Amino acid sequence: MLQQALDIPTYDDVVAAHARIAPHVRRTPVLVSEALNRLTGAELFFKCENFQEPGAFKVRGACNAVFSLSDEAARRGVATHSSGNHALSLAYAAQRRGIPCTVVMPRTAPQAKKDAVLGYGGRIVECAPSTSSREATFAEVQAETGAEFVHPYNDPRVIAGQGTCSRELVEQVEGLDAVIAPIGGGGMISGCCLTLSTIAPGVKIYAAEPEQADDAARSLKAGRIIADDAPETIADGLKVPLKERTWHFVSRYVTDILTCSEQEIVDAMKLSWKRLRIVMEPSCAPPLATILKNPDVFRGRRVGVIITGGNVDLDRLPWIKT
Amino acid sequence: MLQQALDIPTYDDVVAAHARIAPHVRRTPVLVSEALNRLTGAELFFKCENFQEPGAFKVRGACNAVFSLSDEAARRGVATHSSGNHALSLAYAAQRRGIPCTVVMPRTAPQAKKDAVLGYGGRIVECAPSTSSREATFAEVQAETGAEFVHPYNDPRVIAGQGTCSRELVEQVEGLDAVIAPIGGGGMISGCCLTLSTIAPGVKIYAAEPEQADDAARSLKAGRIIADDAPETIADGLKVPLKERTWHFVSRYVTDILTCSEQEIVDAMKLSWKRLRIVMEPSCAPPLATILKNPDVFRGRRVGVIITGGNVDLDRLPWIKT
Repeated sequence: MLQQALDIPTYDDVVAAHARIAPHVRRTPVLVSEALNRLTGAELFFKCENFQEPGAFKVRGACNAVFSLSDEAARRGVATHSSGNHALSLAYAAQRRGIPCTVVMPRTAPQAKKDAVLGYGGRIVECAPSTSSREATFAEVQAETGAEFVHPYNDPRVIAGQGTCSRELVEQVEGLDAVIAPIGGGGMISGCCLTLSTIAPGVKIYAAEPEQADDAARSLKAGRIIADDAPETIADGLKVPLKERTWHFVSRYVTDILTCSEQEIVDAMKLSWKRLRIVMEPSCAPPLATILKNPDVFRGRRVGVIITGGNVDLDRLPWIKT
Repeated sequence: MLQQALDIPTYDDVVAAHARIAPHVRRTPVLVSEALNRLTGAELFFKCENFQEPGAFKVRGACNAVFSLSDEAARRGVATHSSGNHALSLAYAAQRRGIPCTVVMPRTAPQAKKDAVLGYGGRIVECAPSTSSREATFAEVQAETGAEFVHPYNDPRVIAGQGTCSRELVEQVEGLDAVIAPIGGGGMISGCCLTLSTIAPGVKIYAAEPEQADDAARSLKAGRIIADDAPETIADGLKVPLKERTWHFVSRYVTDILTCSEQEIVDAMKLSWKRLRIVMEPSCAPPLATILKNPDVFRGRRVGVIITGGNVDLDRLPWIKT
C-alpha cells in the first residue's frame, strides 16, 4: 500500500498541530508517585491528559482537525460518530471555533455523554445501536449539512494532534526509556509512534489493552488488522478496532502490546486514584496494570505513562457495590 | 502579648524553609477549569497540594520541622498527636531523614490513617479518645524518647513551611486578587498570611470553613479565640481550634472567613472531582463551596484556591449510598 495513498501524517504535521492547538489545549502536568515507583520498581511519569478541559487527550486531535479547516469548510461544520471522549472533544473544539458540530450517537449512549456534548453546544442525532443504522444516519447528516467528517482516530489531522502529547512529555521528562499508553483504535499510540520515532527514537513504545478486547495485540502478532466484533470490557474507550492509518504506525513502531484482566484494570484504576489522587477512567488503567504484571519489562526504567481521560460516572465506581 | 514571646516566624523563615524542604516536597501544579470559571464568574487557580507524596500540604511544615533539627535532637526523633494528615506527613518527613517518629493516636482513628503512618515507618501509640488520655500518653512518649514535639500547626517551623505553598502560587499565577484556603487550626492560612502580607500585600486572604465547625469565623468576629468543644463535620481536617500563633496571623491578615453547609461541602467536593478530575478530601471543599455561595465577593477576580489534601477512603464516598 502506498504511504501517499493513505495520507500518513509526518512529524512536521505534529509541530504545526502543536502551534495550531496551543491556544485551545493545555500543556498538562506530569505527576509522579514514590509509592507506585516502589511497587513497580520503575520510575513512572504520568502525563495527565485527564486534566484537559473536556477531560481527554482527544481534544488535541479534535482541535487540530477543527482549526485546520478553511473558513469555507468550517462554516459547514464538523461531524462524527462516537459515544465517547472524541464526541465531546470535537464539540468543544467546534464551540471554540464557533462552528456547528453534529454527533451521531446510539440512542443507548449514557445520558452523561450526551449531556457533555450538548454542554459544549454540539448537536446529537440519535441512531439505533448498530453499525448499519449509524452509517445510514451519518450519511444523512453529511448530505444535509456538508459537514467535515472527523474520524475519532483514522484521520491524519487527529493522529498529528495526538502526537503533540508525547512531544510535551519528552520535553517535560528527561531520559525516558519507554512510553506506554492504552490502545483502542490506536490514535494516541500512533501519535506517540509518529513523534517518538522522529525526535526520540531510542524510547520504546508499549501499548496496553484489556484481555477482553485484545484485538490490537492479536493484530500485532498476526501482522494484519484483526477487528473484534463487539468486545466487552469495563475499559469502554478501548473497544474499537485499529484502522489502516493507525495500523501503519502500530505495525512499524510498537515494541509490544500487553494485556490485563478486568479485575487488574479495576485494581490499577483504584490504585491510581489512591496514590496519584487523580480521577481517571477505566480505559486509562491498562498501562499501570500491565506494568505491575510485567515487572521485568519495566524495572529500573524511566517510563512515561499516558493518562488518557478522566470522564467517569462518579455515582458508579467499579469497586463500590451500590 | 509580645511577638517575641510567641516565636512568630518571619518571611525569611519561609524562604529558608523553602530551600530546606525543596528536595523532599513537590512544587505542585496549578489546575484550572473553564467550567468552574463559568459557574463562579471568577478565574480560579487550584494549587493541588493533594499531589504531595503523602497527599497533603502538611508535608511542607513537617519537613521544615524535621530537617531544621540539629543532628543531636534529630537522633531522639519527633513526636506528635494527630489522627490526620499531619501524622502521616511527619512520619514521611522523619523517614526521609532516617529518624524515629512516634504518633499518639486515639484507638478509634480509622485503620487507613494508622496504616499510612505505619507505611512511612512511624510508630503509633494508642490512647483513649479523650484529651486527657491523649495528653497523658503523649507526656509518657516524650519522657521515654526525648522526642521533639511537632505540633500540627501551632509551631513556627510548621507555619513557615506552610508559607512556601502560597509563595509558589504567586510565582505560578500572575496578578492574583485573592487566595482562599480551608481553615481548621489555621496552619495553611497562617502560612498564606505570612507570605502574602510580605510579597503580595495586595492579595486578599479568605478562609473557608464548615458552618458546623465555624469557630474560626466566630473567633474573627469576636476578636479572640473561640474553641469549640467537639464540632461534627464531614470536613474532619477542620475540626481543630485556632491556637495563639495561628490566631496571630488570622486576626491580622484575613479579610473574611466564609462558611458553608455540609451538603454544600459534599456538592463542591463532587463538582471538583468531576471538573478538575482530582481526588480531594471533604476538608478541601469549603473554598469552592463558599465561592459558589458568595459570587459577589469573587466575581471577576483571579482567585488562588488551595487544595489541601487528597487522602480519601475511596470505598466510602459521601455522595454514594452503599
